[in-house]
Amino acid sequence: MSASLLTPDELEAELRKIGQERYHNLHPFHRLLHDGKLDRGQVQAWALNRYYYQSRIPAKDAALLSRLPTVELRREWRRRLDDHDGTETNIGGVRRWRKLAEGVGLDPQLVESTDAILPGVRFAVDAYVNFVRERSVLEAVASSLTEMFSPAIIAERVSGMLANYSWITEDTLAYFTPRLTQAPKDTEFALAYVKDHADTADKQRQVLAALRFKCDVLWTQLDVLYFSYVVPGFIPPGVFRPQV
Amino acid sequence: MSASLLTPDELEAELRKIGQERYHNLHPFHRLLHDGKLDRGQVQAWALNRYYYQSRIPAKDAALLSRLPTVELRREWRRRLDDHDGTETNIGGVRRWRKLAEGVGLDPQLVESTDAILPGVRFAVDAYVNFVRERSVLEAVASSLTEMFSPAIIAERVSGMLANYSWITEDTLAYFTPRLTQAPKDTEFALAYVKDHADTADKQRQVLAALRFKCDVLWTQLDVLYFSYVVPGFIPPGVFRPQV
Repeated sequence: MSASLLTPDELEAELRKIGQERYHNLHPFHRLLHDGKLDRGQVQAWALNRYYYQSRIPAKDAALLSRLPTVELRREWRRRLDDHDGTETNIGGVRRWRKLAEGVGLDPQLVESTDAILPGVRFAVDAYVNFVRERSVLEAVASSLTEMFSPAIIAERVSGMLANYSWITEDTLAYFTPRLTQAPKDTEFALAYVKDHADTADKQRQVLAALRFKCDVLWTQLDVLYFSYVVPGFIPPGVFRPQV
Repeated sequence: MSASLLTPDELEAELRKIGQERYHNLHPFHRLLHDGKLDRGQVQAWALNRYYYQSRIPAKDAALLSRLPTVELRREWRRRLDDHDGTETNIGGVRRWRKLAEGVGLDPQLVESTDAILPGVRFAVDAYVNFVRERSVLEAVASSLTEMFSPAIIAERVSGMLANYSWITEDTLAYFTPRLTQAPKDTEFALAYVKDHADTADKQRQVLAALRFKCDVLWTQLDVLYFSYVVPGFIPPGVFRPQV
């Protein structure tokens, strides 16, 4: 990477390039899911494990919120808590994912306990929460920018899953519908913040590394799902085992 | 698990049972390594990634040291820092592992940078350091008890690697020799501490969960190594790629 200062638009182009190379829509597990190549137990394993990620997003956003210095920034970021934990009129993303997990046939109590998830998923998700707690606010905001790439993956996932799994309904996938409008709104703010505040070559390097880190967090979750539930014989001790 | 209080010896028996079921000597990657079924690039990937674990052990021990309340406990635990970071007369475990990595043909600078390790390994190791920072001292001490099981795996690993890889010398594996006497000394103290301080059913449950967690940390590292470097086609973006 060059050590010279990029313009804000060049920085954005570099950020988008990271997505093209490392976003988890490129992962073989995503392809299997989308193409209907997973059996019901494998889709259950995905929904169960992914719930842990969903359930920690508010912890991540609250940690960042607690570090933002102005009313304006905190109000902006607080919208994410509304989206994920819900409001009077919106059940919120976490509970919506619980419905998805129930819709694919999982016991809601098992899902909520997170007792049966893969340790590798827990480690990756916790790494993300800790990153946002410990790094600079700029890096924490930049790590949210995988949402730049999510509308494409969501559209692909929903249409692929509905077309290929007869036992999955539109209602089960209701989690994804509001994300199609929430993610671009979140992205717009975060990207502008990053372009504005990454005003030295060092900060730009940190911002790019933060997005790479976040791509690793998502990619690693699919790695351990693939290894444990697609490659035969590697389900680790003490986790969810699909009924055969 | 029963909710009743175990005797200290029953607690020790439960701890040992966890090792028999979950310690990473049972992992297929360990078998491949020991039986000489890995090629040089795969052994390099193991040494490179495992270095990150070694390099963070002193951070873990220092975090615990900083939380120990008495001179006696701190002096006892400080021996681990001597062992890993070295003394006037002992180069220490971290540098000894660097020699191992060099001995299997890796660039020492690449090893020390930890830039090319698997994200899944980094997340697992960081989870361990954070566990020791955040949980009770009792749980932190208990999480070290995987060392109860390490002399057996070390003996097996060293003899297996020397017998099966002509390009590995006894000198390269010098890391392991002092561990055979250090680990039992460390274990003796930690096990006595845990048996003495886990004096409620709740604390005993925490202690058992801490050891299970630590087994997960070790197991997950071998999971991601196996998936990335044994199963063909899954090396994630941005990490070490063996020369072919």
